[in-house]
Amino acid sequence: MIRANDPKLRSWVEVPHGSDFPIQNLPFGVFRTPGLTPRLCTAIGRYVADLQVLAEHGFFDDLGVPRYVFAQPYLNDFIALGKDGTRAVRNRLADLLDDDLEDWDASELAGYFLHLRDEVQMLMPIKVGDYTDFYSSREHATNVGTMFRGKENALMPNWLHLPVGYHGRASSIVVSGTPVRRPKGQMVLKDGEPPVFGPSRLLDFELEMAFVVGRDTQLGTSVSIADAEDYIFGMLLFNDWSARDIQKWEYVPLGPFLGKSFASTISPWVVTMDALEPFRVEGPEQAPRPLPYLQYEGSGSFDIQLEVEILPDNGKGKTVCQSNFRYLYWNMAQQLAHHTVNGCNLRVGDLMASGTISGPTPDSYGSMLELSWRGEKPIPMPDGSDRKFLLDGDTVILRGCCEKNGVRIGFGEASGKVLPAV
Amino acid sequence: MIRANDPKLRSWVEVPHGSDFPIQNLPFGVFRTPGLTPRLCTAIGRYVADLQVLAEHGFFDDLGVPRYVFAQPYLNDFIALGKDGTRAVRNRLADLLDDDLEDWDASELAGYFLHLRDEVQMLMPIKVGDYTDFYSSREHATNVGTMFRGKENALMPNWLHLPVGYHGRASSIVVSGTPVRRPKGQMVLKDGEPPVFGPSRLLDFELEMAFVVGRDTQLGTSVSIADAEDYIFGMLLFNDWSARDIQKWEYVPLGPFLGKSFASTISPWVVTMDALEPFRVEGPEQAPRPLPYLQYEGSGSFDIQLEVEILPDNGKGKTVCQSNFRYLYWNMAQQLAHHTVNGCNLRVGDLMASGTISGPTPDSYGSMLELSWRGEKPIPMPDGSDRKFLLDGDTVILRGCCEKNGVRIGFGEASGKVLPAV
Repeated sequence: MIRANDPKLRSWVEVPHGSDFPIQNLPFGVFRTPGLTPRLCTAIGRYVADLQVLAEHGFFDDLGVPRYVFAQPYLNDFIALGKDGTRAVRNRLADLLDDDLEDWDASELAGYFLHLRDEVQMLMPIKVGDYTDFYSSREHATNVGTMFRGKENALMPNWLHLPVGYHGRASSIVVSGTPVRRPKGQMVLKDGEPPVFGPSRLLDFELEMAFVVGRDTQLGTSVSIADAEDYIFGMLLFNDWSARDIQKWEYVPLGPFLGKSFASTISPWVVTMDALEPFRVEGPEQAPRPLPYLQYEGSGSFDIQLEVEILPDNGKGKTVCQSNFRYLYWNMAQQLAHHTVNGCNLRVGDLMASGTISGPTPDSYGSMLELSWRGEKPIPMPDGSDRKFLLDGDTVILRGCCEKNGVRIGFGEASGKVLPAV
Repeated sequence: MIRANDPKLRSWVEVPHGSDFPIQNLPFGVFRTPGLTPRLCTAIGRYVADLQVLAEHGFFDDLGVPRYVFAQPYLNDFIALGKDGTRAVRNRLADLLDDDLEDWDASELAGYFLHLRDEVQMLMPIKVGDYTDFYSSREHATNVGTMFRGKENALMPNWLHLPVGYHGRASSIVVSGTPVRRPKGQMVLKDGEPPVFGPSRLLDFELEMAFVVGRDTQLGTSVSIADAEDYIFGMLLFNDWSARDIQKWEYVPLGPFLGKSFASTISPWVVTMDALEPFRVEGPEQAPRPLPYLQYEGSGSFDIQLEVEILPDNGKGKTVCQSNFRYLYWNMAQQLAHHTVNGCNLRVGDLMASGTISGPTPDSYGSMLELSWRGEKPIPMPDGSDRKFLLDGDTVILRGCCEKNGVRIGFGEASGKVLPAV
């Protein structure tokens, strides 16, 4: 077992009941305060721990990890250390925060390296080279296919044979808390009529998770499915905001473009695959059996409970969706093996998102498009209003966590408020 | 008129007849030699001129351009100076190379800053943030549509209303001269049968050009069509290699993915929009009239002759396609205005490619798919073989140039040799 995962560990930092960030999590992020330059951190209870300060005190020197990687505005250089390096740092952080371990106790330095999370600004944790969005929920693909092509042709012929995916826009990925401007664009209001231009009327969220690529590969080479997990550093929450009316008009034949590229919101914390290891589960059975390069043996999925809350301006919030990462048909190793099978190269910091994670029941659908079934079944809100799609002023909050043996590993939030179109 | 564009200028550096690089061109690139770190350069005749050396001699100091921007492995910092800065540098280079101008004559330093192009290695000129591929040739879209959906449904309903585009993979863009490995992937050999895995059998090129974004924009804002050209720094040749069999099986409904992401080849020289200004022409008439945010007044296209040569291993080459950039239906200002109309932000160094540039006649089609009409009309080669698609060992070379008033502005080459699948 990875030392930091020991369910018996307790920290000298108080971790409130239900916190996403016990000593068994220790995710990585980047923060700043008005007085500090951007730097790496981890989360513990209600605090962030400043890794640059810990590095300057020499706590990572014997691990062979250079101090400069902690004084960066992105995690990329840290991630590029490889799993041995990042695992050693995470285990050392557990040592420093463990209330039983006197050798490495850093509690006397608490005032120097702990900040209340509410008092710091969390930044984009990674510099994203390329961002890929998969479409790996069978339930989501079936729901959308049923709406647009009817039940008979819901799943495309390729869907069960490969993890369908497409390239997304990297520049417009923003960190939780960044407001999202309602996009404008072309849309067709009535089938057969010419398009009009204006603010999207069908603004939606998509509940997704994404993984962060942890190793470069060389152009022209592939990563086998057996090796694929070595290339995955960690995971985060991902809201793939979508303007359904813009998307519908533009996406044939080359796929989504402006209906997605106005913004995607990620959570500020990258939870390591190490921390998620205890929560492995098997994914759905795959039939037909995939081609050999996609055949995965073992428990390739993770039991991560997910939810989406819509919080109207000055109103009361409502959880509109409860889903789980384990519902996904294609797992991350399959996605990564597929992505590289043609020789496409990966770079540390690339993001690969799952696609909307819908479950089997209507309350587990991961988008308003599905929840309101194209607007036919509006969702009642606590203030008496209802929602077919998102309104200006709505804040959409994605949350996720794993729980087992009394340990709760959370992802924090991916939150964004919809601002009116300019 | 921009001073460097003066057709009467002559350089003290010999420029052979038919050269792509007279003193009126002065494109920008990045090179290295075994003894030199990567740095910026321009091209003149058969030489590259080392801009770092010129900067170190103070030739750009009075322009307010910091010396460090020339000592970089990419053009991005230089481009970020803005049009005033880059134009001033290009005009100064014309001064330094002009055989009439004694004040700024740099001929005595020739041995320090000129290198034969054959003796240096040209590198990737830009660090690409995001890469977008448009689909702006009506002839190409019609040809492909006719093959796959029949003549009646060739153009999708949206095509005449907006410049269709999609996000491409940035990591696998390589500079001219880099070999390209034949990709492997899933394909369906006979309609209705299950997919098989193996090397692509239908490997293709796509003759495209791309422009380089020259200014950042802020997320949530748009660039008007009137301002769009201020955001375009320059252009280069772009080969969007495509595996037609992989593409055909994967691309519905989310667009091209592994059929494209194994490699794209660009030319090493970015020709500035300033150098191309004399070659402006009107594009095709647009009917129906686009929505106001896409309405362009004036000559928004450029008369750039393009050609593609296939050079078999140890064989004689053949020019298989002659086309022209001016055939494109949607111009670059329209592409950029469309790309940002939803608030998507741009970053210096983003690449936007045109899509395959096919003309009206069969010898102007910009891909093997069209030239051989899906393999029905093989192209005879000088060695007696023929080509439906590309064979291992084939080198594909894209070339482009503008000619007017005795001045020839060329783009060099975007060349890549097909290596067998691993």
